[in-house]
Amino acid sequence: MPDSSPTARRGWYNAFDLTKRSSYAFFTEESLRFADLDHNGHVNNVAFTIFFENSRVRFLTDILPLPRTKSMGFVLAHLSIDYRAQLYYPGNVSAATRVVEIRNSSVVLGQAIFRGDACVACGHAIMVVIDKQSGKGVPLPAELRVIVEEKLSS
Amino acid sequence: MPDSSPTARRGWYNAFDLTKRSSYAFFTEESLRFADLDHNGHVNNVAFTIFFENSRVRFLTDILPLPRTKSMGFVLAHLSIDYRAQLYYPGNVSAATRVVEIRNSSVVLGQAIFRGDACVACGHAIMVVIDKQSGKGVPLPAELRVIVEEKLSS
Amino acid sequence: MPDSSPTARRGWYNAFDLTKRSSYAFFTEESLRFADLDHNGHVNNVAFTIFFENSRVRFLTDILPLPRTKSMGFVLAHLSIDYRAQLYYPGNVSAATRVVEIRNSSVVLGQAIFRGDACVACGHAIMVVIDKQSGKGVPLPAELRVIVEEKLSS
Amino acid sequence: MPDSSPTARRGWYNAFDLTKRSSYAFFTEESLRFADLDHNGHVNNVAFTIFFENSRVRFLTDILPLPRTKSMGFVLAHLSIDYRAQLYYPGNVSAATRVVEIRNSSVVLGQAIFRGDACVACGHAIMVVIDKQSGKGVPLPAELRVIVEEKLSS
Repeated sequence: MPDSSPTARRGWYNAFDLTKRSSYAFFTEESLRFADLDHNGHVNNVAFTIFFENSRVRFLTDILPLPRTKSMGFVLAHLSIDYRAQLYYPGNVSAATRVVEIRNSSVVLGQAIFRGDACVACGHAIMVVIDKQSGKGVPLPAELRVIVEEKLSS
Repeated sequence: MPDSSPTARRGWYNAFDLTKRSSYAFFTEESLRFADLDHNGHVNNVAFTIFFENSRVRFLTDILPLPRTKSMGFVLAHLSIDYRAQLYYPGNVSAATRVVEIRNSSVVLGQAIFRGDACVACGHAIMVVIDKQSGKGVPLPAELRVIVEEKLSS
Repeated sequence: MPDSSPTARRGWYNAFDLTKRSSYAFFTEESLRFADLDHNGHVNNVAFTIFFENSRVRFLTDILPLPRTKSMGFVLAHLSIDYRAQLYYPGNVSAATRVVEIRNSSVVLGQAIFRGDACVACGHAIMVVIDKQSGKGVPLPAELRVIVEEKLSS
Repeated sequence: MPDSSPTARRGWYNAFDLTKRSSYAFFTEESLRFADLDHNGHVNNVAFTIFFENSRVRFLTDILPLPRTKSMGFVLAHLSIDYRAQLYYPGNVSAATRVVEIRNSSVVLGQAIFRGDACVACGHAIMVVIDKQSGKGVPLPAELRVIVEEKLSS
């Protein structure tokens, strides 16, 4: 009998190598802008968080849609990024997102930025499902959990 | 005999319809980001200036390179934008740049943002050539002027 | 008999010296951020448009509030900026906004950025009053026009 | 005999409550901007990383200056943020930075954003000291280590 309790999913967190393109099925393509550069002449750390955000928003909207009948939303509770290489302008990068863990009222996403096959940054984002009225976390709705579990294991 | 004095070029400014794709030969492709949206849910006016800047930087670097032997740089002296239509996320836009006028120590660029063939914004940027040591405007170097005149008439 | 028709207000546009602090009664205080710098090490032209926007939003919200009973909003139709001096990090600047002209369905704002008393940039923003349903420009509501005229002449 | 080896300093990481103003002696004051808002009407997660960066840059420049005689620089290797509360516009926030751990070639900073005394976000940044020529991490120079150890224990 499969154990579908949230805690049973803990531990998947480290099961994926976030630095490999092959760990992801979802990517957004991002064009670098002159405004992404900082005083030091490379793409600034803040631009990476913007790419992470954009990929995450598209992933949540397109792949993990919340039921429209319920007044729920995702909020970002935690973000971590490992900066692995300098990124230079101009050019394009891919921003990858996947599910790496399911919790009771949140989903842990793994993310990375790739230039070609080289991972220039990777990290995690914890998205909590909240009731928009109360602003408090609520359990993942059942229909969403089904999708998330499928995405976790694919 | 062609008059190549700077003042002779005044008046070209309005000779181009900046809202037509066919007025341009140079474009950058820009991917919209969630961070470009503002509180009102459309792409913010600031994002347009970022696209203008990126297209301008690529144009100046790739099409109007300053002689490397001289310590010169372009600085932005004036920017104007007409906002013509709302721009919605997600998607891509093209940012177009061309020469519209030559002055003694500056070049007037015409710019626009296109979504498909629709012009959502257009405007002008006046780029002054400065001596990097003094920070003061200097006449366009002759080799640059040749290129700018060619681009103006094409 | 005073002529209060919109066209009568045309021409005020150039009546104010936008480079003087004394031309303004409304300022926002803006702290510079490392992220405002560009590759060249000075505050980027885009940051100026962000300060202009912030000052404009506070001015429109606090000084020129639209009647809440009507479904109206301001949209930016035109922005122009003259860049007058380099701006260096770190520090603070003031962003000034005032009315410089009244039109039938729009208000022309004069804006500037000051570091101390030195004007590092100035320009104009044309804000059109639209009906939020149709997205089309509508005449300034009478109660707003009264306030705008008062602000124009002060 | 005091153990000053880098590993001896491991473990301090969790010795500070990053959510308390009293854990910090260094703050930058940040004015919120309309451009910091996202589609949802609150200050976007990206703006928090901009405040963290600004506070970090000032802290490193003013409190932990690298010896000018050596070609060294700090680079950001890791960033993590816990988002603890919504942040609303307009207003001001304080961005706090302190040392929380010393490693062989890096310094771990603790950071937080406060609105009044309320901590709306906190996190860590790992800054690696690199040789600018090679781009590789190098041990903290002795004179810097002395300052960092003093800041760690204060």
